[in-house]
Amino acid sequence: MTNVLISSYFEKEHIDRINSVDDRLNILYREDLVPPPRWEADHIGPADWSRTPEQEAEFLEMLSEAEVLYDFPRGHVRNLLSKALKLKWIQGSMAGAGEVAKKAGLLESDVKITTASGVYSGPLAEFALMAMLQHTKRLDRLREDQTARLWRQGISGTLEGKTLCIVGMGNIGRAVAERAQAFKMRVVGVKRTIREEDEAWNYANELHETANLQTVLGEADYVVLTLPGTPETRHLLDRESLAAIKPGAYLVNIGRGSVIDEAALVESLENGHLSGAALDVFEVEPLPEDSPLWTMENIIVSPHSTDVVPELVNGLQVDLFCENLRRYLDGESLVNILNKELLY
Amino acid sequence: MTNVLISSYFEKEHIDRINSVDDRLNILYREDLVPPPRWEADHIGPADWSRTPEQEAEFLEMLSEAEVLYDFPRGHVRNLLSKALKLKWIQGSMAGAGEVAKKAGLLESDVKITTASGVYSGPLAEFALMAMLQHTKRLDRLREDQTARLWRQGISGTLEGKTLCIVGMGNIGRAVAERAQAFKMRVVGVKRTIREEDEAWNYANELHETANLQTVLGEADYVVLTLPGTPETRHLLDRESLAAIKPGAYLVNIGRGSVIDEAALVESLENGHLSGAALDVFEVEPLPEDSPLWTMENIIVSPHSTDVVPELVNGLQVDLFCENLRRYLDGESLVNILNKELLY
Repeated sequence: MTNVLISSYFEKEHIDRINSVDDRLNILYREDLVPPPRWEADHIGPADWSRTPEQEAEFLEMLSEAEVLYDFPRGHVRNLLSKALKLKWIQGSMAGAGEVAKKAGLLESDVKITTASGVYSGPLAEFALMAMLQHTKRLDRLREDQTARLWRQGISGTLEGKTLCIVGMGNIGRAVAERAQAFKMRVVGVKRTIREEDEAWNYANELHETANLQTVLGEADYVVLTLPGTPETRHLLDRESLAAIKPGAYLVNIGRGSVIDEAALVESLENGHLSGAALDVFEVEPLPEDSPLWTMENIIVSPHSTDVVPELVNGLQVDLFCENLRRYLDGESLVNILNKELLY
Repeated sequence: MTNVLISSYFEKEHIDRINSVDDRLNILYREDLVPPPRWEADHIGPADWSRTPEQEAEFLEMLSEAEVLYDFPRGHVRNLLSKALKLKWIQGSMAGAGEVAKKAGLLESDVKITTASGVYSGPLAEFALMAMLQHTKRLDRLREDQTARLWRQGISGTLEGKTLCIVGMGNIGRAVAERAQAFKMRVVGVKRTIREEDEAWNYANELHETANLQTVLGEADYVVLTLPGTPETRHLLDRESLAAIKPGAYLVNIGRGSVIDEAALVESLENGHLSGAALDVFEVEPLPEDSPLWTMENIIVSPHSTDVVPELVNGLQVDLFCENLRRYLDGESLVNILNKELLY
C-alpha cells in the first residue's frame, strides 16, 4: 500500500474522488488536523490557527508514514524532510511551488515535486483582460460621470491592433495570449529560451528571449507579467526596464511581486511614464497600509486572490492529482514536475 | 461624372482617400458647411450648431446635385427627398441606419441605403466583455476595499463554463461571441431566422430562434443584447422576458435602448432578480437625470458612445465607403445594404 497524506483542506466530494483512484492507495485525511478553509476551497486557513499538542502528535504520526503528500503541510514546511521520512513525492496546490519547495529544503533532495501549474491560468488571464479592457474603455471616467449623473459622450479606446507584451509564456502567459488574440491584439511573448518547435509560437505573433526584454518593452501598449518568483526573475522589471516601456503603457502583474522593483514602479506611475497598473501580487503581502499604491489613480490593487475560483480550480486541481496518482502507481512520469534549478 | 456629397465631418486624410478612388467621381465636401466634430472623428457635431442662411443656401445647392450622399445631412433628414432630387444612394456612418432612414422617408423610395454595420462591432464587443469580466471578478468590491486600504482575500468568479446568451447574431453579436469563446464560455445565439448554412453557427455552441427566447434566457448567466431598434424588436425584453432570465444573471445592452422595457428592467434589478447590468443605450437619451439607473449598484451607465474609437472606426468606415464607391461605379452590388423591411 502507498500511504498518501492529504495535508490541506479539501471538500468531501474531492476526498472521495481521490479515495476511489486505486485500491493500492491508502488515503490519510483528517479534517480536524488541517487548517479550516477561510472560504470555499481555501487550502491555507486562518493565520492564527494551530493544532493542539494532541492533534500535532496525531498529524506527525501520519506525516511520518506518508510516501505521498498532497500539499505542503501547515507548520511543517521548514522541517519537512526530518518529519516525513518516507516522503517520495509532494503535489503542491499552488501554481508556483518553487519558493515553498526551497524553504522545505527539497531542492537538494530526491523528493519529486509537482505543482498545480495550469489550474489557475484561466482566472488569472481573466483578471489581466479585465484590467486592460477597463483601462482602454475608461471605466474610471464612466464611473465618475455616473456618480455626477453626467451624460458625457466622447472617445473611447480599443485593444484592437495594440501591442501586448507577455513576459513569461508558460500556462498563464499562454492563457492571456489566447484571450488577447480574440481581441485582435498583436501579441509579443518574452521567454527565457525559445525552441524552434516551441508551443508558445501558437500563441504569439512574435517571440523574443528575455535578453531582449527592453527592446520589446519599447513597443508595448500593454505589459503582462506572469513570471514565478525565483532569484533569476527578481527585479527583472527594475528602474531601467520600467523606463524602457513605451510611454503611456499599462502594466499588469499576475506572476510574483518580487519580479518588479516596486519603488521604481511607484515612481514610474507617479511621473506618468506608465498610464496605470493592475497588480494581484506585491513585493510585501499583505500590501502595507502605507503603500502609495492603495490610493494612486489608475491602479487596481487585488489581494493576491484573483485566482481563487473554487467552482473552477478545485475540480481541475483534483483532476490533476488523481491523474498524477495513477501515473505514480504505474511508474509513469508525472505531470507538472518542478524544475529544481529553474524553480518553476 | 457622379456627384458625391460628403455631408458630415471627415479629416483631410479621409477626404483625400475618397477623392482618389476614381476619376469619374466629383467629390463635394465643404468643411464649413458640416457640423464641426465634438471630438476626433465625430460625425454629429454640437447640438446648438446650425448653418447661416448663406451657408444653408450653398449646402442645399450641393445637396440638389448629389447622386451619392456620404452620411445623413444635418438639418435635412425629414425633407431629404425633396432637397436631394438626384439622390440614388446614401451611405450612413452608423451601424443601425433603419431609424434615420425611416425618418427620411427613404423606405418607400428607390434610394439605396447602406450602413456602417461591422465598423463598430469590435469596440462594442469590448464593452460587453469588460462589463462581464468586471462583474465576475468583482471589481466594485476590489475598489471599495482599495479605498479602505483593506487587504481582503476571498473567492472570485470566472466566465469559464458560464452560459452567454447573445440576442442578435449579426456583426456585433458575432464579435461578442468570438471573444467570449476565447474565455471558454458556452455561447448560445438567438436569431430571428436560422438557416442551415448560417455563418452564425461558427460562433455559437447553439442557435435558437427568437420565438424560443424565453426558454434560452432561463439558462443564461450572461445576456448580451445587440439588436437594432425596429418595431419588431421594441420591448422584446419586456417584464415577462426579463422574468424568464435565470436569477442572478447579468445583462448587457449594446444594441438599442428600445429593445428593453426600462421600467421593468429597473424593477428586475431592484428586486435582485438580475445581479447587474451594463447599458450603453437607453430608451430616452441622454438618460434623464432622475433615472434610478444612475445610482443603482452593479450598474454601468455608458452614454451611447463606447463605440467611438476614432483610431479604429474612422479608417474602417472610409475603407467601406471607398469599396462601395468602386462597386457603385462598376454596377456591382453594394456592401451592407439596409433591408427596408427588417430595418437592419
